Amino acid sequence: MQDPRAEILRKAAELFAQKGYSESSLNELARAMNYSKGAIYNYFSSKQEIYDAIIIFTLTGLYETAAKAVKEADPPVERLRHYMMAHARFLADNYDCFVTMLVGFSGMANAELKDDALRLRDAHEGLLRQILAAGIADGSFRGIDAAMTGRAVLSLLSWMVRWFKPGGKKSAEDVAQDYFDLVLRGMQPREG
Amino acid sequence: MQDPRAEILRKAAELFAQKGYSESSLNELARAMNYSKGAIYNYFSSKQEIYDAIIIFTLTGLYETAAKAVKEADPPVERLRHYMMAHARFLADNYDCFVTMLVGFSGMANAELKDDALRLRDAHEGLLRQILAAGIADGSFRGIDAAMTGRAVLSLLSWMVRWFKPGGKKSAEDVAQDYFDLVLRGMQPREG
Repeated sequence: MQDPRAEILRKAAELFAQKGYSESSLNELARAMNYSKGAIYNYFSSKQEIYDAIIIFTLTGLYETAAKAVKEADPPVERLRHYMMAHARFLADNYDCFVTMLVGFSGMANAELKDDALRLRDAHEGLLRQILAAGIADGSFRGIDAAMTGRAVLSLLSWMVRWFKPGGKKSAEDVAQDYFDLVLRGMQPREG
Repeated sequence: MQDPRAEILRKAAELFAQKGYSESSLNELARAMNYSKGAIYNYFSSKQEIYDAIIIFTLTGLYETAAKAVKEADPPVERLRHYMMAHARFLADNYDCFVTMLVGFSGMANAELKDDALRLRDAHEGLLRQILAAGIADGSFRGIDAAMTGRAVLSLLSWMVRWFKPGGKKSAEDVAQDYFDLVLRGMQPREG
């Protein structure tokens, strides 16, 4: 096993997403991985610590994936599209982590990590607001409220975890493209 | 107490929303209501039964509130606005119920009620799709995908339970109005 820590997180997210956090145990996790419980304790001291690590992993990856996608794109409309696509793709690729996170963002125990999680979430939202502000500034978007519009975009993407299943007819990026088309026109200036 | 059943649901939702379902007990609920545990058993046989009843109450109220709001409105664009406003208002008025529902829709134990819940959710979504289909038919909306667009509208509204707090600067209806403005233009035909 290349990276046991990452593998434990992946398997734990699968278990939490399937059975719920409260109903899952480290014994089950160890069994599912063909690990001894002691082997897991080499990396994490508790189920709660694993849960917290999943949240941080998910939010870090989400932000970094979006930031990377946006960096390559220009102008603001394209950056918005790349942001939405990257978010949707990362959600599909890490579906169990998102289900785990949705079940209880507030369930994190480690206060410091909780602050980290909030910072990461804010960074991801901040990236989007910057794109919107740039588009308002250069006239790509009408004088929308960047905070409200950013929240709308993230609501669309975040709620996917409640209904979208990877491997279906539409990919996560197909859905993101539909949403992009829908909100883009609401954000553009009226055509003269 | 006028309607002890409704009062138990209301108080239980408050407790579940605050502490989480697993962490809440009937003993706490009874204490919070100045009831004996036996008094609660006159109406519900278990915590799970109360949870299930909250979901059905919430989905029934949501659908009926939206259906009533829509009935009085015409044409499709106005019906869409009324639908979104009614949904947002009902969410704000029954915030704890929505938090309880979000925490675990799949947590319902009674299979028959679970089917009822799915039917109610589908009815609420169906109402919206009818509005969108009527608007496409009469040219108010461009040839959008009613299923996708309906899902987008409900995603915006449903995600509110994750960030919106009643009693803040913006009312739930203010938010719904912003969302309406944003998506409406994405749904309208291009102006010639």
